[in-house]
Amino acid sequence: MTPVLRSYTHDTWQDGNGPTKPLLDAATGETVALLPATGPDPAAMLAHARQVGGPALRALTFTQRAAILKDLSKYLRGHLEEFAALSTRTGATRRDTAVDVDGGIGTLAVYASMGARELPDATVLPDGDTEPLGRGGTFAGRHVLTPRLGAAVQINAFNFPVWGMLEKFAPAFLAGMPSVVKPAGQSAYLTELVVRRIIESGLLPEGALSLLCAGPAGLVDALTPQDTLGFTGSAATALALRTHPVVAGRSVPFNAEADSLNCSILGPDVSPDDPEFALFADQLVTEMTVKAGQKCTAIRRALVPAALADTVADAVTARLRAVVVGHPGHEGVDMGPVVSLAQRDEVREAVARLEADAKLIFGDPEEIGVVGADPGKGAFISPILLRCDDPAAVAPHEVEAFGPVSTLLPYTGLDQAAEIAARGEGSLAGSIVTADDHVARTLITALAPWHGRLLVLNRHDAAESTGHGVAMPQLVHGGPGRAGGGEELGGLRAVEHHLRRTAIQAHPGLLADLA
Amino acid sequence: MTPVLRSYTHDTWQDGNGPTKPLLDAATGETVALLPATGPDPAAMLAHARQVGGPALRALTFTQRAAILKDLSKYLRGHLEEFAALSTRTGATRRDTAVDVDGGIGTLAVYASMGARELPDATVLPDGDTEPLGRGGTFAGRHVLTPRLGAAVQINAFNFPVWGMLEKFAPAFLAGMPSVVKPAGQSAYLTELVVRRIIESGLLPEGALSLLCAGPAGLVDALTPQDTLGFTGSAATALALRTHPVVAGRSVPFNAEADSLNCSILGPDVSPDDPEFALFADQLVTEMTVKAGQKCTAIRRALVPAALADTVADAVTARLRAVVVGHPGHEGVDMGPVVSLAQRDEVREAVARLEADAKLIFGDPEEIGVVGADPGKGAFISPILLRCDDPAAVAPHEVEAFGPVSTLLPYTGLDQAAEIAARGEGSLAGSIVTADDHVARTLITALAPWHGRLLVLNRHDAAESTGHGVAMPQLVHGGPGRAGGGEELGGLRAVEHHLRRTAIQAHPGLLADLA
Repeated sequence: MTPVLRSYTHDTWQDGNGPTKPLLDAATGETVALLPATGPDPAAMLAHARQVGGPALRALTFTQRAAILKDLSKYLRGHLEEFAALSTRTGATRRDTAVDVDGGIGTLAVYASMGARELPDATVLPDGDTEPLGRGGTFAGRHVLTPRLGAAVQINAFNFPVWGMLEKFAPAFLAGMPSVVKPAGQSAYLTELVVRRIIESGLLPEGALSLLCAGPAGLVDALTPQDTLGFTGSAATALALRTHPVVAGRSVPFNAEADSLNCSILGPDVSPDDPEFALFADQLVTEMTVKAGQKCTAIRRALVPAALADTVADAVTARLRAVVVGHPGHEGVDMGPVVSLAQRDEVREAVARLEADAKLIFGDPEEIGVVGADPGKGAFISPILLRCDDPAAVAPHEVEAFGPVSTLLPYTGLDQAAEIAARGEGSLAGSIVTADDHVARTLITALAPWHGRLLVLNRHDAAESTGHGVAMPQLVHGGPGRAGGGEELGGLRAVEHHLRRTAIQAHPGLLADLA
Repeated sequence: MTPVLRSYTHDTWQDGNGPTKPLLDAATGETVALLPATGPDPAAMLAHARQVGGPALRALTFTQRAAILKDLSKYLRGHLEEFAALSTRTGATRRDTAVDVDGGIGTLAVYASMGARELPDATVLPDGDTEPLGRGGTFAGRHVLTPRLGAAVQINAFNFPVWGMLEKFAPAFLAGMPSVVKPAGQSAYLTELVVRRIIESGLLPEGALSLLCAGPAGLVDALTPQDTLGFTGSAATALALRTHPVVAGRSVPFNAEADSLNCSILGPDVSPDDPEFALFADQLVTEMTVKAGQKCTAIRRALVPAALADTVADAVTARLRAVVVGHPGHEGVDMGPVVSLAQRDEVREAVARLEADAKLIFGDPEEIGVVGADPGKGAFISPILLRCDDPAAVAPHEVEAFGPVSTLLPYTGLDQAAEIAARGEGSLAGSIVTADDHVARTLITALAPWHGRLLVLNRHDAAESTGHGVAMPQLVHGGPGRAGGGEELGGLRAVEHHLRRTAIQAHPGLLADLA
């Protein structure tokens, strides 16, 4: 019998209600699980997290919380193959699963060691030095960071059912805030499995983690000024949440990470024989095909010197021709399907909009030969490469095809490259592929205000590069404008988002006691 | 002839258009200046700031910008008496002017020295250490802070025409962002005078400071993701700005500082003979009367141990009886009028709403004897003290009378005191008046998540205390929930709000070059 997903709160797995929605295997179309329309009352879930989870977490020191995260990452690593097997059903190859599942558990481990190394064995975190406020030395000020008294509500996207949860949970837990997780429907069964294992581990205090496998109705309405709201997904939903009367009216701290039209720029110094040429083409194909291009950080715009545009087009299409699309569990398959037939339709529609301004130079959005699966049943789509020679065109800078799709954009001169990059109106990640430090510095200066993260890729660092699309726990993830204006990860910066900074003014003797 | 206020942009003072609104002397009702309905096109003002002011500021290093701020603070100090004379017309006594004008110039000076001392002679600010991202040492990550490429739009409140401008301008300028200032109408003539002197000083690069003396129509619509928006004022306007389609839709960084229902708590350890008893009563009366209570940080809720409530009420009313209300320029006057007759009416209305739950124990909102002015023409109102013995009452925790008004709230036990304080749903500032460190620590822990700043006041620090209501440049100003959820000042933290944090991944050699 097909399982109906359950929610977790009040120390219990709870059945949902109402009509259920089938969640289909991305490659076979078989039903993996059923998602109920409604779950436990979100207001009651939040109240439980605040009243039971919060006090339990605040009673622990940062060091104690870090130790729990470390044990939890080890425990989950022991279940990796079970998670990987289910992950396949979302359309993920083993390479894709490494980014989501291994990457999520790795993020827990990194936060565990940062917490152990850099945070005190205390419940209050001093922030900065004591500032004298009088010449006599009897009055001074100091900032302290204390956990917010609410719940950290986390609304995640379908493309990272595990990493998306764990990268938000780890900083909140370390800060001392309980998490209430709302996964996206399409891949919620994988999130549910991981939460089951987390709960079974017995490592977490009661109330520290709740899971809502159902529609979101009532969740945002129940927020208070002491809660935080983290969201990953579309710009439209981010806007709806940001302007929600409760979020805006109660000044609920809100962090959005929205898809963006990230660029990769091939430096004008690079010739086809330079290693940077191949690095650029290889990285572009990787970003197009990992998770079938369903990454908020994927390269949507590939900027190349106009004189090299044909050569780059040839090199990239040659590589794309070699990509094997098929069942993600099948030996030799490079790229699986997108998550659902609906998602495939959205990608096709976006490609059609891009074609208003750009020429399709590789792939057919309607046709694809697949290995080990029935193309009539799975959500398969070919990698698609477009090219747009008009620097004034609009679509490549506005339309995001959230699949294996990218557009080549020829440019003339660094100024124009920077200007084209900025037309994305804010991105999560950008790559600069050059061995010329002057080019790198010029583009870094021009692009930094528009980007959350910039990668300079060349022969000197390629062997160890973590890649354009991978958000590292140590580094900020998020970007301005279209990317949502938020900031996730970035080491302890992400922990601070769940703490309240308060200036304390007092006699220096009392201030010294506080930390 | 009564002057019509002008706006400053494109290196020129520009006349406004449309019908004008008279701005009246708060004490005499005479017309001080006329405010035009519309000014220069806000979109063109922002474009000029971005295209002329931004590049000029970004060409300077942090050290150079700090030096300009230092010279500017000295220059403005030379015009202090001119500013003070005009400040009187807003209703400000010389003591009130010290908070606004001297305080604003002092804030410039503090940012100048922090910039000189703590920021590099460079245009990029490194943030944190280089993080190794590979074992071979060829790939690493580092964060840099670079100025946003837009304008810092600053919408200020009537009660701090000078400090409100300068405390927002200083961090933006230091960061390398041009400011576009929109003062509140009632006291805009004082802001305009100070901007005249700033421009005349010749110290600022063109485009670094623009002034809009007119209605705000079109200003917010012209914002882009590279701009920032700072606001001080009512919660209702903060909400409208936060949910504005351009602000929310383009993820424009928004900082709100809204009025809040700040508390001062007399510790249960204090007896009437202790110095803390007088410190509590004195500070309460100061906060009620400075700027006629028109401070976002003023004490609206005075929490006292129930057993001492009558004694406190007597002590405070005795002090209030000695307060001389009158023309702010008149010798011996302790408290001037509120800013306008409309503001006086709003205060009266709020007092009436408070009286639903609280008893008036000092002052008559309709009647006041004044010195050196005609009570029929000026916006005079008596200090008003109320008392509410019902801990479940609603009004004292929801209604803000933005004038010389406060409510005594008896409590029983520290838990109840903390609970009552939290009912303000987020405050800018709170005071804890106690000589018992255990009481102080207990209340700090309970109140910190609800406050931007907490002051512990007692015999040990009173001589040097800067007071409950004064926002210090070194310390965070802002609070959660009702207070707007923003963060101004706080030393260099405020500068960082105008910079974009970007993670750079590259070979460590290149990263070392960046800083």
